[in-house]
Amino acid sequence: MKRGARHPRLLQNLPSSLDEEQVEELLRTPTLRIERIVSTGQASAETCWYDQSEHEWAIVLSGRAKLRYEDEEGEVELGPGDAAFIPAHRRHRVAWTSPGEPTVWLALFWTEA
Amino acid sequence: MKRGARHPRLLQNLPSSLDEEQVEELLRTPTLRIERIVSTGQASAETCWYDQSEHEWAIVLSGRAKLRYEDEEGEVELGPGDAAFIPAHRRHRVAWTSPGEPTVWLALFWTEA
Repeated sequence: MKRGARHPRLLQNLPSSLDEEQVEELLRTPTLRIERIVSTGQASAETCWYDQSEHEWAIVLSGRAKLRYEDEEGEVELGPGDAAFIPAHRRHRVAWTSPGEPTVWLALFWTEA
Repeated sequence: MKRGARHPRLLQNLPSSLDEEQVEELLRTPTLRIERIVSTGQASAETCWYDQSEHEWAIVLSGRAKLRYEDEEGEVELGPGDAAFIPAHRRHRVAWTSPGEPTVWLALFWTEA
């Protein structure tokens, strides 16, 4: 198991502006990966759907975001404490993140069913 | 895989007072379990150390807590966004949680190394 810091502080040392989403791996095991993702107003390209081979469970720690699913009408808005379970290959995109502040996600990825 | 709500909101529907910690399972796979844990001022009994067969990675979403490890002097204080990776069998206790508010944890448990 790769070990990151024993006590990472996910809401500290946030970038104030970023050209791209910042992804930081916090922990990795053979089947589980934990990441901090920081975005500042980025959204997926309108024509781009994520189609991931891994299951994902993500929670917003600060900021706000809107998710879209290809198989569902409308958007799901997420604020602090709000999570999304996205099964592998459920096509989705981040339609919006709050432009005035960093949006910080904790995201888990794993492969087994 | 057991599927909980697709979009759980972990900082909503918080109990205002609790006699015991409240544990809610959010998702379970054969090797990974995701829980929300809410405590309102509880701490582990002073003589009791958790000695878990699973690895744990936990993050405070709201409130504050102090962790103690049997093999380490002092306490680790955690506030919102602060996480702790606790390997299996590292004996630890929750020395304190903020009494004036619910302390909400997101906790992951898994077994493989």
